[in-house]
Amino acid sequence: MFVAVMANTYADRVEALRRIMRERDWDAIIIPGADPHLSEYLAPRWKQVEWVSGFTAETADLVITLDHAGLWTDSRYFIQARKQLSDTGIELHKTRVPEQVLIPEWLADHFGRQQEIVIALDSLCVSSAFVDSIVSRLAEEGTQCSIAGIPNLLDSIWKDRPAVPRTRIFQVETGESRGDKIDWLRSFLSEQCSAAILISALDEIAWMLNVRASDIDYNPLVISYLLVTEDRVCWYVLKDGYDYDEERELFSELASEGVEILPYGDIELDLSGFDLPVCLDPDAVSYELSKCITSSVIPVQSPVAARKAVKNVFEVNNIRKAHLLDGVVMERFLYWLEHSVEAQTGVTEYDAARKLYELRSEVEGFCGESFETISAYGEGAALPHYVTPHVNAPVLFPEGLYLCDSGAQYEFGTTDITRTVPLGRCTRTQQEDYTLVLKCHIDLAMAIWPAGTPGCRLDALAREPLWRYKRNFGHGTGHGVGYFLGVHEGPHDIRQNLNPVPLTPGMIVSDEPAIYREGEFGIRHENLLLVRSAGTNAFGSWLRFETLTICHFDTSIIIKELLNADEIKWLNDYNEMVYNTLSDRLPRSVAAWLKEKTAAI
Amino acid sequence: MFVAVMANTYADRVEALRRIMRERDWDAIIIPGADPHLSEYLAPRWKQVEWVSGFTAETADLVITLDHAGLWTDSRYFIQARKQLSDTGIELHKTRVPEQVLIPEWLADHFGRQQEIVIALDSLCVSSAFVDSIVSRLAEEGTQCSIAGIPNLLDSIWKDRPAVPRTRIFQVETGESRGDKIDWLRSFLSEQCSAAILISALDEIAWMLNVRASDIDYNPLVISYLLVTEDRVCWYVLKDGYDYDEERELFSELASEGVEILPYGDIELDLSGFDLPVCLDPDAVSYELSKCITSSVIPVQSPVAARKAVKNVFEVNNIRKAHLLDGVVMERFLYWLEHSVEAQTGVTEYDAARKLYELRSEVEGFCGESFETISAYGEGAALPHYVTPHVNAPVLFPEGLYLCDSGAQYEFGTTDITRTVPLGRCTRTQQEDYTLVLKCHIDLAMAIWPAGTPGCRLDALAREPLWRYKRNFGHGTGHGVGYFLGVHEGPHDIRQNLNPVPLTPGMIVSDEPAIYREGEFGIRHENLLLVRSAGTNAFGSWLRFETLTICHFDTSIIIKELLNADEIKWLNDYNEMVYNTLSDRLPRSVAAWLKEKTAAI
Repeated sequence: MFVAVMANTYADRVEALRRIMRERDWDAIIIPGADPHLSEYLAPRWKQVEWVSGFTAETADLVITLDHAGLWTDSRYFIQARKQLSDTGIELHKTRVPEQVLIPEWLADHFGRQQEIVIALDSLCVSSAFVDSIVSRLAEEGTQCSIAGIPNLLDSIWKDRPAVPRTRIFQVETGESRGDKIDWLRSFLSEQCSAAILISALDEIAWMLNVRASDIDYNPLVISYLLVTEDRVCWYVLKDGYDYDEERELFSELASEGVEILPYGDIELDLSGFDLPVCLDPDAVSYELSKCITSSVIPVQSPVAARKAVKNVFEVNNIRKAHLLDGVVMERFLYWLEHSVEAQTGVTEYDAARKLYELRSEVEGFCGESFETISAYGEGAALPHYVTPHVNAPVLFPEGLYLCDSGAQYEFGTTDITRTVPLGRCTRTQQEDYTLVLKCHIDLAMAIWPAGTPGCRLDALAREPLWRYKRNFGHGTGHGVGYFLGVHEGPHDIRQNLNPVPLTPGMIVSDEPAIYREGEFGIRHENLLLVRSAGTNAFGSWLRFETLTICHFDTSIIIKELLNADEIKWLNDYNEMVYNTLSDRLPRSVAAWLKEKTAAI
Repeated sequence: MFVAVMANTYADRVEALRRIMRERDWDAIIIPGADPHLSEYLAPRWKQVEWVSGFTAETADLVITLDHAGLWTDSRYFIQARKQLSDTGIELHKTRVPEQVLIPEWLADHFGRQQEIVIALDSLCVSSAFVDSIVSRLAEEGTQCSIAGIPNLLDSIWKDRPAVPRTRIFQVETGESRGDKIDWLRSFLSEQCSAAILISALDEIAWMLNVRASDIDYNPLVISYLLVTEDRVCWYVLKDGYDYDEERELFSELASEGVEILPYGDIELDLSGFDLPVCLDPDAVSYELSKCITSSVIPVQSPVAARKAVKNVFEVNNIRKAHLLDGVVMERFLYWLEHSVEAQTGVTEYDAARKLYELRSEVEGFCGESFETISAYGEGAALPHYVTPHVNAPVLFPEGLYLCDSGAQYEFGTTDITRTVPLGRCTRTQQEDYTLVLKCHIDLAMAIWPAGTPGCRLDALAREPLWRYKRNFGHGTGHGVGYFLGVHEGPHDIRQNLNPVPLTPGMIVSDEPAIYREGEFGIRHENLLLVRSAGTNAFGSWLRFETLTICHFDTSIIIKELLNADEIKWLNDYNEMVYNTLSDRLPRSVAAWLKEKTAAI
């Protein structure tokens, strides 16, 4: 009965919004899947799309009109959306597909015959670039679109809405002082002939100030804004709530370095009184804040994102340590998994995820997972972003494929690893797919390429072995990863989109080709890679990857003929390195097992 | 003595331009490497850069100020530019390199401290987009830039400047009538809510009207403009000059179909009187014409370029025939080459190019070469765009590598092929490079990829085998090819630049990876490929290539271990297909030789 009640509730919530629309003569309400910092992961307060629709993935936006309710999300979530939206009356609009009709376009189709419309939205949780794209697209149709930008629009109907989160703030060693980072940012300002820069992306603020907290699940971030001028550093943050000595010390250290700690809520007022030109990223700063600024705005791509992506030597060394300790955890986990499944103890997907969490918890410096573990057996793994149920999770049996995508936040680095484990007998198709996806992974990991090349130009290397068999996967091949920060970060990536940012030494990127067969199984092989120099010759400068992740790939179902000699050598060398690096740190039984698992093929 | 006199003359010409600048208070003159149709290849009248500087490649622009003369050209021509510009006082500015400073940027650096400047240019031979980029870049520096746009600016000092060319105009069968093409263009106009479209790209006009001529070397084009409205088709062309029956018939046929034939020079006047919104491509229409239009302009990417790139069944069948006949020519040529060089008859690069021309001339429907043949032995081949000297050309000896890049214009299709031929003993590096470049060629030719993919995402497939050895080539991998039209056409390509145009069935693209070792040798292996469907499955729609070019690859210096089993199979199958397809059409001695040359490795 629980489900039925909830579904009614969602429809009721949509109706409640329509009542407001009628009262105020609005033509549409947009409920964005974002927070005031346009974060990818959301604190409960900003899970507005979920509250209205019941759809739990965070990458989704809702548009409600008097005669339509639509949810826009990408190919990773189509199956989940079909399930969660059934009976809500909300229609799925697919993005990242060739035939996609994005929100501005859809609004233009829907309202293009009207002279004037009013669209209401939570002005805190959309970017100014997004609002501009809607207004200008409708203008092309001759429709004048007024925006009713209302901060916390849902407050009137979401009675028990959670507050802005506030967790313990602490500082981290990163090999570079706040002072140096601020000096660098000021030199950027002077290059841009600007007097100030507004940073609202939470990972950029954490990086700038060498601070962390846990305001958002899986993300060691502090909800705050940062405004840097030629002579001031203003950090807008919820000051009260914690009263630990450590935090008090940090705050006075910051103050002594000239960082002014100001109330989170003061940012709008302070911006509206500002009379100097301000740099900001129109894709990263909310419409609400952009509206406040009365002085001139210089649109820029954030320089912090680009610099943060290039790790320094201190960070790289710590990240290597994080992967070493995470590798020990992973091998202990895989050993436990194999033996538990073989013993048919009834271990479930959720038990496995819990076991992995427990093992990671034993590592000193572990601060939580870097995202919710995807522990998926059989057909669950066919969903790239499967959510493992906490109750009635599927039991693992000694056959078929089990996929585990997980990561940790350590004080000294962030990890992200996927292993697909054959639990017993597998079909020929599973064997082929397993081998081809590994071939894709290896081909990218082995790549050498000219400096200056963006990741999108390498993406085909991690797909061609699948393409040859007319197989493919619908998501990107690789994303950036932060240093004890977000498990997804830009500005670089390796994917289909033509992102022009070159891969440069010090960047970290995941290598995670995959295959999904709906209703059957899914396979993904993921390591993190570090971009390094490979020297210079008459043909120019060359780059290559160093694999950071240290955990063996299971070879039991590999079809050796599908790999070439170079790929086989890479795999054997990698597995041997894993054994040599980890064996001394593993219980003797696990080390002996790993020796067998890493035998050359 | 000839060279010395010419060099003086170039410096004199630059000085003559500076005298004009001083008289008129201009700060800079731009001499563009283009014609009023922004063509890639230029008729003698528009070889203005060559006339001023002595630099003979067509992809170059000159900027002359009172204290500087600079020539901008890309990496293909750096070596040539260094040679041809020595003693002219003109400095080379490199483009298509990471550190490039393009003309708008350079002007901003040079004049950025001045309040106002005047830049003069031949307004007929630059695009409006180029002029806009200069004006807006200088505006960023606070410099107001006035453009003195003067049609035929050089006329006052270039006394014997050639006239606008006028050659015999004839019509071609293309499988689609003019009427259908015009109907399609009008449906595009109604989609754009526009009343007219101005087309000034010569290959687009030739395609629209199914006409050809030979106004520009290697390009079967008619110098003209085309203006299509909802009820008129206006073709601005030099009417007089030819008086052949065939042409008179064509003109009356056009007239009977409603095509108005108007004097070439009337376009400006007609445009200035036009009062309907006009679609045009700001990158393809000259600044002069854009200025004339007083009604509203709708900037569009030309729909003709995109449609022309997709060949219809009639065209594809004819193109296959063109490649069959061209393959016969190529094999006869390669047979002659091998035997002549072995006999040490003193055959030169130029003799070889002439021989190839003679063999092609025997083919019925041959209308000339599609570009100047690159016939290059040894170090000459290290220049991607080597120009074979007509006198004192290097003699070919039975050792090392000879490269021949050539193509034909047949009435039924355009060809473009490069073969690199080992004439005898080769070094280990030559053997490796030869094999790796062929491996690159084959990997692209074998590719299967998802529909919707742009060529830039396949480019790495044709480079990875070289990258692995830290080798590379500095130009694109593939360009589009017209149907009895330009040997280079867009909008698609396969190259480093992130061109988002997807490869679609019916497009033709070259596959020409290469390697160049300055002062030593060059290798390039080029076939033309046709994009075809490869079916649809659960993972989506798939595309593949069909190789159009029919001419064997020499296997004598291949290092077999560098190729994998799939690549070896492709090569053996291809060479076998070449023999089976051509042997009946070859003299018996050539067929017997080809049998040996195509033996499986």
